[in-house]
Amino acid sequence: MRELSVKTDSKIVLLVIDGLGGVPMDPSGETELEAANTPNLDSLAVRSDLGLSRPVAAGVSAGSGPGHLALFGYDPLRYVVGRGVLSALGVGFELGENDLAARLNFATKDSSGKISDRRAGRIPSEKGAELVELLNENFDLDGVETFVRHEKEYRAVVVFRGEGLSDALTDSDPQRVGREPLPIKPTDDSPEAEKSAALANAFVEQADEILKEEHPANTVLVRGFGMHPNLPSFEEIYELDAAAIASYPMYKGLARLAGMELLKEGEGIAGEFETLRENWDEYDFFFVHVKPADAAGEDGDFERKSGIIEEVDAQIPVVLDLGPDALAVTGDHATPAKLKSHSWHGVPFLLYSPYTLPTAESFGERPCAGGALGAFPAEEIMGLLMGHALKLNRYGA
Amino acid sequence: MRELSVKTDSKIVLLVIDGLGGVPMDPSGETELEAANTPNLDSLAVRSDLGLSRPVAAGVSAGSGPGHLALFGYDPLRYVVGRGVLSALGVGFELGENDLAARLNFATKDSSGKISDRRAGRIPSEKGAELVELLNENFDLDGVETFVRHEKEYRAVVVFRGEGLSDALTDSDPQRVGREPLPIKPTDDSPEAEKSAALANAFVEQADEILKEEHPANTVLVRGFGMHPNLPSFEEIYELDAAAIASYPMYKGLARLAGMELLKEGEGIAGEFETLRENWDEYDFFFVHVKPADAAGEDGDFERKSGIIEEVDAQIPVVLDLGPDALAVTGDHATPAKLKSHSWHGVPFLLYSPYTLPTAESFGERPCAGGALGAFPAEEIMGLLMGHALKLNRYGA
Repeated sequence: MRELSVKTDSKIVLLVIDGLGGVPMDPSGETELEAANTPNLDSLAVRSDLGLSRPVAAGVSAGSGPGHLALFGYDPLRYVVGRGVLSALGVGFELGENDLAARLNFATKDSSGKISDRRAGRIPSEKGAELVELLNENFDLDGVETFVRHEKEYRAVVVFRGEGLSDALTDSDPQRVGREPLPIKPTDDSPEAEKSAALANAFVEQADEILKEEHPANTVLVRGFGMHPNLPSFEEIYELDAAAIASYPMYKGLARLAGMELLKEGEGIAGEFETLRENWDEYDFFFVHVKPADAAGEDGDFERKSGIIEEVDAQIPVVLDLGPDALAVTGDHATPAKLKSHSWHGVPFLLYSPYTLPTAESFGERPCAGGALGAFPAEEIMGLLMGHALKLNRYGA
Repeated sequence: MRELSVKTDSKIVLLVIDGLGGVPMDPSGETELEAANTPNLDSLAVRSDLGLSRPVAAGVSAGSGPGHLALFGYDPLRYVVGRGVLSALGVGFELGENDLAARLNFATKDSSGKISDRRAGRIPSEKGAELVELLNENFDLDGVETFVRHEKEYRAVVVFRGEGLSDALTDSDPQRVGREPLPIKPTDDSPEAEKSAALANAFVEQADEILKEEHPANTVLVRGFGMHPNLPSFEEIYELDAAAIASYPMYKGLARLAGMELLKEGEGIAGEFETLRENWDEYDFFFVHVKPADAAGEDGDFERKSGIIEEVDAQIPVVLDLGPDALAVTGDHATPAKLKSHSWHGVPFLLYSPYTLPTAESFGERPCAGGALGAFPAEEIMGLLMGHALKLNRYGA
């Protein structure tokens, strides 16, 4: 890709409806997408290449991290990104190459030292921000700098900056109430991992001391240690000036990993598309992320998921009016309401450009299964978009 | 493949319609193949496996070299073949392992030393052959043997034979008129590349001296340096006695790389099939290459491309009368008239044998998209042909 990519004026949009893929509740029924009333997506399908994309591997349900890495063209089995890294990037922290990041939950510890609430009663964001302030300037960790940043409600992120750190560490989060927090342990024999484990445990100890008078957030649980994976950027690989429109920190973080510029999104789904319109002239690639379909799928709410898809459908004319040269509409993974969780199923994929081989009258899992692209790895999506936008040179004489 | 292949009496035909794949000019319309009136291919499709084959990678338009390597079962990303090698093999030159080959254009240099015509006014083939004669015996290159061979019109090929040569070299062709020819430079630090660059520059200098009284062809431009990639042959991999019927030098060159015998083709498309008939008893694998569909696609001439496909269709009974055990009809890449160039689109693929799973009533991109083979890498075609011809042992107990 690096060798074949060329800079052109054409513009690409990658519209990701999180957890788009589904299965029928009953074998004879329709999926969430098929049941949704989507006149705009259907009329787009009539002019598009269709297929079912697979995020990671057959039968494997992808997390949002691997799901998006694949959509962005990175091998999700090669590039493993710790949750802490995504959180740090998502809150806009400029993570350096040697920084060690982890997710941090404010939690409640009872008098016996056991965790009684892993989310500290879901404290409001204002309280969370206050506690983060309290923590921020009060660590003494042997010359290692510590940054605590607030994410949302009870969630925050910690970044350690120093020489010779490693993310080969276990979590302190016991995952269930009624247990003591776990000591953080190295998962390999390196001196870096040993040093980092000691550091992280000292951090927890000092945080407990700082928070001991607080209630209900009198401790922190740490998990998802990670370091910057140093992905080659969209500019390096594709010569693209890429921008991201996403409302959730994790997706912003994923976009930052690929070197995308984060655009300030407007209110709700319509607001995201308004942001797209406002910034259309400034970039040649736009990643637009719509979150709530996934949440509806996780709640098992088939109707709500269909409804959110319909809300996105209503915005399709906004995108088409801008005149993208290549537009993909897909998801990062399936989240069937029937499963109430991420799943391994193929994700409906539609690619619209002037150079397509249309095969169906509507957008849905079954039309996609019979599409020109068949079932294919999500990692190929960026290549397809680059090809359709005429941004790739020919390979070989 | 090497371990599983067995020699049998069955015969395979791989019929390649260059640039076969297409897209509709309008989303609701048909492709070149779908629009063509192809009663023979359609009735064959009813008895065949169908699919869409992909030459190199998603979104990537393949050159003819990589496109054919994939059809022949070689990984086109692993085996990179310089244009010079294809030209040398195409004119029937027996390229040795250490030979260095390059494409050579006769061109016109003006009095200021700048190139005024990169093709020397497209001199006729007779003139080109004459100039090649003139060059052929007149080089003094430090013990390195030099062979110049005529290709067609203003095109020729040069082969250097000596120890320690390298193809890590830039072209002398400036690609645009009004510029001086470029000095040939090594692209790596090896002594071989340095030696080869000096050698190639000395060759150009001596050629200029020899041609200085000629008009308009008073210089040569050199490009596409390459050395023999040493592909394992069809005999080694598949135990096949393979023959090629192709009218263009490059495709002959590609077939030679795979160790195929070049058969003298008759006149036009019908002549190629006549050659197939005449040589039927002598080989067990035939690669038949039909060129003009690609040229029609590159010209953006939808109707002409359909017409050439119809011309091939008329020859299908000739092939069927011979009774091939496995017959594939496909292309090396798509060349949609809409794009006027090679493209990344799936290439219609049809495999006829007694052991197929037919799925459609006609041959075309859309019936192929819904076929038993789906979308699949072109590298798998040789395996499919070998399997259908019952030339592969079972793998494992």
